[in-house]
Amino acid sequence: MALKKAGVLGATGSVGQRFILLLQNHPDFEIHALGASPRSAGKAYKDAVTWKQTALMPDSAKEVVVQECKPEGNFLECDVVFSGLDADYAGEIEKAFVEAGLAVISNAKNYRREADVPLVVPIVNPEHLSVVENRVKEAVAKGEKKPGFLVCISNCSTAGLVAPFKPLVEKFGPIDAVTATTLQAISGAGFSPGVSGIDILDNIVPYIGGEEDKLEWETRKILGNISADGKTFEPLPFEDMKVSAQCTRVAVSDGHTACVSFRFKNRPAPSVDEVKAALRDYVCDASKLGCSSAPKQTIHVLEENNRPQPRLDRDRDAGYGVSVGRVREDPLLDFKMVVLSHNTIIGAAGSGILIAEILKAKNVI
Amino acid sequence: MALKKAGVLGATGSVGQRFILLLQNHPDFEIHALGASPRSAGKAYKDAVTWKQTALMPDSAKEVVVQECKPEGNFLECDVVFSGLDADYAGEIEKAFVEAGLAVISNAKNYRREADVPLVVPIVNPEHLSVVENRVKEAVAKGEKKPGFLVCISNCSTAGLVAPFKPLVEKFGPIDAVTATTLQAISGAGFSPGVSGIDILDNIVPYIGGEEDKLEWETRKILGNISADGKTFEPLPFEDMKVSAQCTRVAVSDGHTACVSFRFKNRPAPSVDEVKAALRDYVCDASKLGCSSAPKQTIHVLEENNRPQPRLDRDRDAGYGVSVGRVREDPLLDFKMVVLSHNTIIGAAGSGILIAEILKAKNVI
Amino acid sequence: MALKKAGVLGATGSVGQRFILLLQNHPDFEIHALGASPRSAGKAYKDAVTWKQTALMPDSAKEVVVQECKPEGNFLECDVVFSGLDADYAGEIEKAFVEAGLAVISNAKNYRREADVPLVVPIVNPEHLSVVENRVKEAVAKGEKKPGFLVCISNCSTAGLVAPFKPLVEKFGPIDAVTATTLQAISGAGFSPGVSGIDILDNIVPYIGGEEDKLEWETRKILGNISADGKTFEPLPFEDMKVSAQCTRVAVSDGHTACVSFRFKNRPAPSVDEVKAALRDYVCDASKLGCSSAPKQTIHVLEENNRPQPRLDRDRDAGYGVSVGRVREDPLLDFKMVVLSHNTIIGAAGSGILIAEILKAKNVI
Amino acid sequence: MALKKAGVLGATGSVGQRFILLLQNHPDFEIHALGASPRSAGKAYKDAVTWKQTALMPDSAKEVVVQECKPEGNFLECDVVFSGLDADYAGEIEKAFVEAGLAVISNAKNYRREADVPLVVPIVNPEHLSVVENRVKEAVAKGEKKPGFLVCISNCSTAGLVAPFKPLVEKFGPIDAVTATTLQAISGAGFSPGVSGIDILDNIVPYIGGEEDKLEWETRKILGNISADGKTFEPLPFEDMKVSAQCTRVAVSDGHTACVSFRFKNRPAPSVDEVKAALRDYVCDASKLGCSSAPKQTIHVLEENNRPQPRLDRDRDAGYGVSVGRVREDPLLDFKMVVLSHNTIIGAAGSGILIAEILKAKNVI
Repeated sequence: MALKKAGVLGATGSVGQRFILLLQNHPDFEIHALGASPRSAGKAYKDAVTWKQTALMPDSAKEVVVQECKPEGNFLECDVVFSGLDADYAGEIEKAFVEAGLAVISNAKNYRREADVPLVVPIVNPEHLSVVENRVKEAVAKGEKKPGFLVCISNCSTAGLVAPFKPLVEKFGPIDAVTATTLQAISGAGFSPGVSGIDILDNIVPYIGGEEDKLEWETRKILGNISADGKTFEPLPFEDMKVSAQCTRVAVSDGHTACVSFRFKNRPAPSVDEVKAALRDYVCDASKLGCSSAPKQTIHVLEENNRPQPRLDRDRDAGYGVSVGRVREDPLLDFKMVVLSHNTIIGAAGSGILIAEILKAKNVI
Repeated sequence: MALKKAGVLGATGSVGQRFILLLQNHPDFEIHALGASPRSAGKAYKDAVTWKQTALMPDSAKEVVVQECKPEGNFLECDVVFSGLDADYAGEIEKAFVEAGLAVISNAKNYRREADVPLVVPIVNPEHLSVVENRVKEAVAKGEKKPGFLVCISNCSTAGLVAPFKPLVEKFGPIDAVTATTLQAISGAGFSPGVSGIDILDNIVPYIGGEEDKLEWETRKILGNISADGKTFEPLPFEDMKVSAQCTRVAVSDGHTACVSFRFKNRPAPSVDEVKAALRDYVCDASKLGCSSAPKQTIHVLEENNRPQPRLDRDRDAGYGVSVGRVREDPLLDFKMVVLSHNTIIGAAGSGILIAEILKAKNVI
Repeated sequence: MALKKAGVLGATGSVGQRFILLLQNHPDFEIHALGASPRSAGKAYKDAVTWKQTALMPDSAKEVVVQECKPEGNFLECDVVFSGLDADYAGEIEKAFVEAGLAVISNAKNYRREADVPLVVPIVNPEHLSVVENRVKEAVAKGEKKPGFLVCISNCSTAGLVAPFKPLVEKFGPIDAVTATTLQAISGAGFSPGVSGIDILDNIVPYIGGEEDKLEWETRKILGNISADGKTFEPLPFEDMKVSAQCTRVAVSDGHTACVSFRFKNRPAPSVDEVKAALRDYVCDASKLGCSSAPKQTIHVLEENNRPQPRLDRDRDAGYGVSVGRVREDPLLDFKMVVLSHNTIIGAAGSGILIAEILKAKNVI
Repeated sequence: MALKKAGVLGATGSVGQRFILLLQNHPDFEIHALGASPRSAGKAYKDAVTWKQTALMPDSAKEVVVQECKPEGNFLECDVVFSGLDADYAGEIEKAFVEAGLAVISNAKNYRREADVPLVVPIVNPEHLSVVENRVKEAVAKGEKKPGFLVCISNCSTAGLVAPFKPLVEKFGPIDAVTATTLQAISGAGFSPGVSGIDILDNIVPYIGGEEDKLEWETRKILGNISADGKTFEPLPFEDMKVSAQCTRVAVSDGHTACVSFRFKNRPAPSVDEVKAALRDYVCDASKLGCSSAPKQTIHVLEENNRPQPRLDRDRDAGYGVSVGRVREDPLLDFKMVVLSHNTIIGAAGSGILIAEILKAKNVI
């Protein structure tokens, strides 16, 4: 079957490089357009990029001539465009791409809170994609040209938090109180310059700009509802799900750890074993759809008391699975647990790829 | 004035080495006896120890001949004995020393929960020392020989947590709910072998055996009361102060960070500015008594949003002060904050030294 | 084709775990016997081991019942036995296995300097295996039972050093002077306890017991000759190849870096470009034999001036390739270069596997 | 006695902050002028700087109003001006300051190779200061105004290398061959951004731009001679002292380690014990002059085989001393040793301060 054509915006950046790695030998997509700054435009990708991944640069990307990030040239032929743009640039560029009729999946934060833009963690709330699916199918039904649309990838630390909550809420009803302290990897900050070495060696930085607010807000949209007309999103009211986050940066390369406490609204609360079983039994829709990047096991429940650990567990299911350990009773709320998710896979570029796989499986792209 | 004679049990270990460093050129104490395993006994200290401190070994300790940890020889002449023994040995040895009439200040966990043993963070609850003060002075009044006694130093991570709570409770009444996630330094685990390098490089270990329970329990004893007869301790009931802790080990050499949320019992809660002011204005009793190691500023309230950081802030007031940053409202409880304390100073050996200084100032030793 | 049966001695240790990982889904070998301490014997492997690898434990190993390290039971049916034993135990156990007629490939240092034991880096001197090949084939020709034999894997840091020297010596004649400073990963020290975290965080340890001597000596055996009768090894005389090594331990998980200077005996020396070309063009025999683990590119010559880097380059060719960068003229000797090799793959267990593949290709096992 | 007035150029940068720390409570100098970029000019220092030191900002600097880096205002009243400027700016600014009659001590590389500019490691070649001393005293003798002059601080890694060489050359004659591999701390790269965290965590960068050339060249000037007329410097000819350097960046905060091999020109070479004794007995001139920052022990010869280590030994003599360990015979040259020096103290700002102390002791400033 013919591969879908994929474009990457911000292709030389940290997230862009990850998109390119994940598109290598992908069964559904092939790289068709790479966009970067005017300074890089016109160069072969290998000459424009400072490659910083632990895997080698894919041959399929090396000779692609980089374009500017404008909806023209090869980009116009793309079935899907992944955006790894910085927030400083994403706003205008992504808008232009959508207006040009393109399907954009973005890692940038700019439009995450728009009422009609899905904010999706593909192993959690792919059903939110129905809002763009409806829009596209309606247009097609009318004989119109497919409209452009935007899907936002969640903040990296949010992805790990909501993954275990989804099956728990499905099974045991609302979670109305959450505290989460995150220990986040430095790869999440990119590398130009990202976190300075002298700031993180033998150190912790107990602050990541805007992160706590994202965690507290995005969680409620991702676990929230679609409006009755199927066109917009209705985040859970703050009172229904209070989230308190503290975000720190630690000396870990990849993998965000979160120490989480939470309380169910309904009494009696389930037992620890019931919680673990619900997590273990969860099969995300992407797996059911047979998406190639979907995790075999969506949530790994670890029983060793000193797990999950970033170095040992971040690559489970190639970074698309989430690991949960130390599920135990909490003296204050109902349960405590430790959640580990791969911040550049399920927390960023990987989510984008899996969202695209779902959209393709549903014939939206 | 003549210096008081000090002994150190477990002198070759991690905590013992710290005691020896802190006793160097001390205005109140001089090293008089060093105890270690039978294997070390009879050797000069410099030949018995593998010195692992960043400061050089004090000359005053080098040639001291190490004894076994028995209440005999030089130990019997000591005014105070600091114990850095492992829990495996501390139980029997400390008991024997107390029975031999010695004043023992111990970093071991063995007797912390005994009803008549003070569990003291010297910048927080020195008033708990009155239980042993009374015992000693009563005996002296009766013309009896000074009795031996034991004072326990708190767990390292507990010290940082209770420090800011003390002035807040004094000023605003009970704190009835606390969640704390700690990011603890590896020096807390000692070095034989302590935390393995391969376990902590590019990694987090989300578990420290027994630590969460200590944090949840010791907090209630330290902030709790003395019985009416002045002889025993009455920890706060669990229902009056629920503490939920998650403890992790991170790649930091010294300095425990805690991300804390807490709620006052009384309504309305104070404002953020009132909380900060109470922390800033707190002067611990040790400072009022003029103890030489007492911090000039007990609690440093930092206003930069990315502080405290272990590498930059752990040495404030030589590790006897505690740093608090990011005091802000919490969506779930009342406030969030980040607390940093030096785990081997105010969290271990340093607390022992400062307790001894207080006891000396009060003529108990 | 039927798989050869493989045993692993020291199966629960650091090197043993790597052997087990590398045997997973191997086209030539299957795990048939696992040996460990008497304490572990009788348990399923998954219950005997503290698994510390970043990849998950292979299902094929989980339920294998661990034996003692004696040449009995399943071990007697093994076509090859990989030894990851500590030097404290390797001496007697490996001797017993060889005497029992088994083919043993060992990572231990005990017999490396024996005149009739091949010391092999499989991408460098597989021709040294002819000594055991001859022995086996001679016995078979005589109608005798296949004799047991031992092949030693080189020291981890030696492997990286000799890899680039092999093609250079082949092409340009003897290298008579070498200085090498190594920056070695902590995984090389195992993990019970291995290097302590407090010793390596924000630190370097400029000493690894015995390592410099190994590097200086083993290099001369590996690049040395076979005696005229084909039965023993004749290391290069010290005067013909003076090696000066300084070995340090650094905060890197995997991958040994060596900063090397060297001089050719013959004048004029080749040019930088000729040296690079010789390195690039080198195809190791294991590749020619079609061994499944043989690197596609034996030596990667990197042109970026800040490479090779452990995190970015250690996994080239799955750790079986060696990376060389910064080849440039040396003011003192002829050339300087930086060499990176994966210490647990080509520097340890991986070498063992590739040696076994070569022996199988040659019908020795 | 009145304190000399000191200015600091590049006061908000990494080196500038170190100058300010070292000037705190200095017995000879007080801060009189601070210079930074136009963006900072006019602000109080505490508002202009992002303070990144582990010690707190000195009160004496907090309220000083930052000036532009021009020879005007308070700078004109300075007895000495320390420059922590980046090489991009140092060239013109330092020139203007010298032309305005100021005594400038610079950490920048721009003028190090000028024939009439002393390149000084104060514990090694303070006698090179005679060139500016003569110039100043000559002018004064003629009744002229004191002329401005420049003294350059050596490259950070050079300082550690030449320190042990000085007494060895004095005692045993020329060293004609040196190989040195350095493992350099990240603080040497500053912090805006300096070395990126993702580049150094679990990694080594085997390249520091221009560093090897500096080490190879500066060593020959520092250990070289003054011309017969006392006005210029004559570096040792390359043939008389061949230095081969390989420089790497490692995950260490402070402290450069060098693994060094070297050969004396004269035969027979001294013994290991003679080398150690010469190092131990060396007393630098700054110590003899009674300079307050001069090390009590210039070179610490460590006998433990795993020392020096950056974390344990970098702060000896407050970073003004150099540690040498593992002195042993070398198979290729004469000796191997490991040298550790504090890169921001004796390798940068501290050297500047000590140079100023020497100049003051000699009445040059």
